[in-house]
Amino acid sequence: MPQTAEPPVIVLVRPQLGENIGKVARAMLNFGLVDLRMVAPRDGWPNPSAGPAAAGADIVLDQAQIFDTTAAAVADCSHIYATTVRLREDTKRVVTPEEAALEVISQPGRSAYLFGREASGLDIKDVNMANAILTVPINPEFGSLNLAQAVILCAYEWSKTQSLSQPTVTDQLPPAPQEQLDGLIDHLEGMLKPKGYFLPTNRADATKRTLRNILTKPGWNHLEIRTLRGVLSTLARKIRAD
Amino acid sequence: MPQTAEPPVIVLVRPQLGENIGKVARAMLNFGLVDLRMVAPRDGWPNPSAGPAAAGADIVLDQAQIFDTTAAAVADCSHIYATTVRLREDTKRVVTPEEAALEVISQPGRSAYLFGREASGLDIKDVNMANAILTVPINPEFGSLNLAQAVILCAYEWSKTQSLSQPTVTDQLPPAPQEQLDGLIDHLEGMLKPKGYFLPTNRADATKRTLRNILTKPGWNHLEIRTLRGVLSTLARKIRAD
Repeated sequence: MPQTAEPPVIVLVRPQLGENIGKVARAMLNFGLVDLRMVAPRDGWPNPSAGPAAAGADIVLDQAQIFDTTAAAVADCSHIYATTVRLREDTKRVVTPEEAALEVISQPGRSAYLFGREASGLDIKDVNMANAILTVPINPEFGSLNLAQAVILCAYEWSKTQSLSQPTVTDQLPPAPQEQLDGLIDHLEGMLKPKGYFLPTNRADATKRTLRNILTKPGWNHLEIRTLRGVLSTLARKIRAD
Repeated sequence: MPQTAEPPVIVLVRPQLGENIGKVARAMLNFGLVDLRMVAPRDGWPNPSAGPAAAGADIVLDQAQIFDTTAAAVADCSHIYATTVRLREDTKRVVTPEEAALEVISQPGRSAYLFGREASGLDIKDVNMANAILTVPINPEFGSLNLAQAVILCAYEWSKTQSLSQPTVTDQLPPAPQEQLDGLIDHLEGMLKPKGYFLPTNRADATKRTLRNILTKPGWNHLEIRTLRGVLSTLARKIRAD
């Protein structure tokens, strides 16, 4: 049976000011989003500055979930959008808030929008985890969109899709939740390490990022991931040369 | 040739806080709007609180024009949109920010968006002056859109109509030619076969089809394929247990 896609999750990665978290909550609730997650908010949680800035959107703050890592925050999400104001060199797909919203409502599985800290945005590691880059097309000579504004544009575009007739999602299996993809990547890295694939050590992080990008691109579902885990186990099998 | 309509004018009617005026300027410039007009700002003009909140959008503040009446502010405008958060009883047309933007770019003459004071919105007299009501559809149970947020949504929708605001396409590489994908698949199958992955023999074809489907799905480019070939070569490497 076709199901209705879930509203997207908003993930603030290492947000700095409580006031901004409150404004995000307000922006979300204005457009009907309630699932707020935070990764290691700088000043801890709860934050007394968040409430007043939320202007009544307390329900969003009260239900907010806190995680230690981005991976944990999106473990149950199948589609990860990394929001950036400025495009970086990257091989990932780039979508607008509108395009992302249309994807979110038409693809099975839960979607998450990642937003980085106010001062510097998302780390490259967080961007790597994403299936696509979400960029708000702004004035190239004056890019000064703050966190709550970026969130409100994404939430607004999502809400616009809700007034249309509810599209039904396809029967296609959704991409596996992030933790299953992480399991595959860990498995492969664990096999490659003893063979010296990550040497020299100073290139290891870049090599791992490349590998993660390649394996994130497909959006494999849980059956496909399971098959690939089987492939890896088979490759690791020792065969006697007798 | 279609003529490019002028960007809309943003008119703040009796705005209260300088900080909000600055935020409006910032929101405007992010999306390429520069024509800001104010009707009788409560605290006079210039307002020292506006600059810091504009976050660099000083050009908008510097060029801002001040008027005594709404009629004077929109004297040169042909299309007036009165923004309201809550719909009032009115016989005027009601449009969304998106619909308004599409009208603005397709109708000859200058358009203006009127925004009322933070606390109470537009007076009925100002609304009367408008050709249409512009309403942002928000959560009916939580309507808490502030002035700058309302402006940014309108400016954003207008910028979406401008082709120059389209995000630049990344240098995404096309999927590798089929023969390169075939090379990867052959390589993997060659490693799996001696380990018994394709046994029993009568299931071998189905297993190979599954594997090919999984590896075709990503649309990997030639660099990604090359990396994966390297991964396979590494995995095949013998390491001495000494």
